[in-house]
Amino acid sequence: MSIFIKNVQYEQSSVDIFIEGDHISRVGERLVCDADRVLDGTGKAVVPGFVNGHTHAAMTLFRGFGDDMPLERWLHEKIWPREAKLTDKDVYWGVKLACLEMIKSGTTCFCDMYMHYPVILRAVEEMKMRALLGSVVFDHFNDDIAARYKQEAERNMALPHSSRVSFSFAPHAIYTVSADTLQWVNHMAEANNCLIQMHVAETQTECRNALDNFGATPIRYLHRIGLLTPRLVLAHCLWIDDDEIRMIADHGVQVIHNPASNLKLGSGHAFRYEEMKAAGIKVGFGTDSASSSNNLDMIEAAKLASLLQKGWRNDPTAMPAREALHCITAAGAGILRINAGKIAPGYLADLCLINLNAPAFTPGNDFVSNLIYAASHGSCVDTVICDGNILMENRKVAGEEEILAEVNALTREFITEQ
Amino acid sequence: MSIFIKNVQYEQSSVDIFIEGDHISRVGERLVCDADRVLDGTGKAVVPGFVNGHTHAAMTLFRGFGDDMPLERWLHEKIWPREAKLTDKDVYWGVKLACLEMIKSGTTCFCDMYMHYPVILRAVEEMKMRALLGSVVFDHFNDDIAARYKQEAERNMALPHSSRVSFSFAPHAIYTVSADTLQWVNHMAEANNCLIQMHVAETQTECRNALDNFGATPIRYLHRIGLLTPRLVLAHCLWIDDDEIRMIADHGVQVIHNPASNLKLGSGHAFRYEEMKAAGIKVGFGTDSASSSNNLDMIEAAKLASLLQKGWRNDPTAMPAREALHCITAAGAGILRINAGKIAPGYLADLCLINLNAPAFTPGNDFVSNLIYAASHGSCVDTVICDGNILMENRKVAGEEEILAEVNALTREFITEQ
Repeated sequence: MSIFIKNVQYEQSSVDIFIEGDHISRVGERLVCDADRVLDGTGKAVVPGFVNGHTHAAMTLFRGFGDDMPLERWLHEKIWPREAKLTDKDVYWGVKLACLEMIKSGTTCFCDMYMHYPVILRAVEEMKMRALLGSVVFDHFNDDIAARYKQEAERNMALPHSSRVSFSFAPHAIYTVSADTLQWVNHMAEANNCLIQMHVAETQTECRNALDNFGATPIRYLHRIGLLTPRLVLAHCLWIDDDEIRMIADHGVQVIHNPASNLKLGSGHAFRYEEMKAAGIKVGFGTDSASSSNNLDMIEAAKLASLLQKGWRNDPTAMPAREALHCITAAGAGILRINAGKIAPGYLADLCLINLNAPAFTPGNDFVSNLIYAASHGSCVDTVICDGNILMENRKVAGEEEILAEVNALTREFITEQ
Repeated sequence: MSIFIKNVQYEQSSVDIFIEGDHISRVGERLVCDADRVLDGTGKAVVPGFVNGHTHAAMTLFRGFGDDMPLERWLHEKIWPREAKLTDKDVYWGVKLACLEMIKSGTTCFCDMYMHYPVILRAVEEMKMRALLGSVVFDHFNDDIAARYKQEAERNMALPHSSRVSFSFAPHAIYTVSADTLQWVNHMAEANNCLIQMHVAETQTECRNALDNFGATPIRYLHRIGLLTPRLVLAHCLWIDDDEIRMIADHGVQVIHNPASNLKLGSGHAFRYEEMKAAGIKVGFGTDSASSSNNLDMIEAAKLASLLQKGWRNDPTAMPAREALHCITAAGAGILRINAGKIAPGYLADLCLINLNAPAFTPGNDFVSNLIYAASHGSCVDTVICDGNILMENRKVAGEEEILAEVNALTREFITEQ
């Protein structure tokens, strides 16, 4: 299949884009191409598809389920008991809903961590998104549990995956996974050339407990047990000091910042982006799950990340709009090792067309500023292409009514429980 | 004109709403009414129209004009030189654009402060929004300037206003308006039963300068010169101490919090909402101008305000979704002395219908949570009614293409200047 996008705004000019198969083959002015589909880009701008660097897609089922509660009560009374009852069918439709929401807000690729890997894989393949899926690893410092999750991870790794979807190991956190199991994960990831994703330094409590239990802060502990490598992608890293930033940088570890989740769960606000950037660390953004943040909108994440930097530093020049856009496109793609995030020949055809015919893009002084600061939400996305397939056109996604209806039917009992 | 909204979700039930003239006359189940217009509320929820407590509508022309710059350079190099050249025509179309954007995001009423009052009044009357317009007062500590702005304010106050639009005095700030002129404003406002709106304690610099120049922090200075009364609406109040909160509360002064602007301009992040609430102060939210924040979206303001409270306090229970919704509806209306902000008989017919057929409202565990935390943006608003007139239906506003085209034509030169 080939797609020809005519006359679309890209940076300062109007260009044509030719997509052949899964990749962009030509970008230029007044191209002449013979394509299966021609899209008129007039009144639209093109941007790379957004990359959501950290989420738990199936938890979209828990959106609005116990907000505004203290973290421990929320987990113990709401999330964990309900999570234990989730069936494969629940997870399947939860992931479909998450994919629908991501497509409708311009995200073409996401990094996921959750249980029920095989059904997540099936749902994502059906929705034709790009993803790095994480097979969750827990052991709660118990060998039997460790054995079960290791087996499961090996089984999940062996499942057939399309070229769009990759496997990763997802040890949950240092307080739920032992050093032995983390080292097994590290060894397996190296042997199989996989990434490892993990929650680290999300709360002050986690850091205090690490000091009590391991005699070291989380990053120092990971360093000591040999986990800091370029394969490692760390979600959060909200509570880290200058030396830990140095360690992360020196070992080529990557970081995903989740501003909405960190604020809403009361984890904190002062993410040290400027220091990480200065140290040369690659930083992407994520939404975390819709049960904590409560949506999967990457433009919103970009605005929030930028505004927070400026606000807590009292510095309006911190994280300009272009840098925030870079974090949700090229930087995110680089962290997930995907050849996307740019509109240029040879890159994967993961891109969005933005509708400029709206107050947020008027006046058109500065497109990137208008996208991040004024539109500030995925509702400005008109068309989404991923891997050379059109996933949304004119804001319509195939099968969306069925997904909303199925999730509403499945979750009726959640409301009664609340 | 009468409007009958059938079968719309309101809190936990499905209701019918009958609007006669400018007000809601009946709310109940299975009403039988004979109306000029019948709207089907199936698949929609009703909320009061949002109240934007602080903005400078005409500055929507400057959206994206010099972002990410240090505050002083932004004002001196970008905003003030361009502002000095604004014509009545520029302001007229800037306000029309702002009204269009507000209507499209569910705002029915706003509080404005800017120069060129007569054309602002004309644009707002034409757009059929409700507004408290502020006649700006400056004197830069110079008697001639003071005389000019006083005359202008008196002339503006005498202009014919519809029942939807009211006059207020808008002395800019304590560093641009002398105590004499502030006291004149206070006297005039009392004599004419008007509100006074003003920027106060927005930056640390302002507070330091107040100590240097007046020997007191801004709120203490206003107290000393007799300005603290229930007529006073203060925008920002970001840098205030416990005693100042007490003074604001004791004198019935109201506060408008502008979270996006405060963050983006690097003014600060730690707005003391919980302390103000405990002291009994009425707090509403505003967007500030689109040149600082960069949109006029009140749902976004509500989410941001809530997330910021939780984040900087490390407390997920701070400012729940319902409280944030209250701030942008009933609290805002109360502060502007408007009998709106509630869906009940006798209240002004200022309301929005929200489209629930979207991922953000799925599952429907909790409508208010989904509205503020998940939809988190005005694009979920389907229909807007203000003063009993339908301003938007099915996301269409009369004349929107013309407004976008006029503003784009007018502002082409801004881009060249940049």
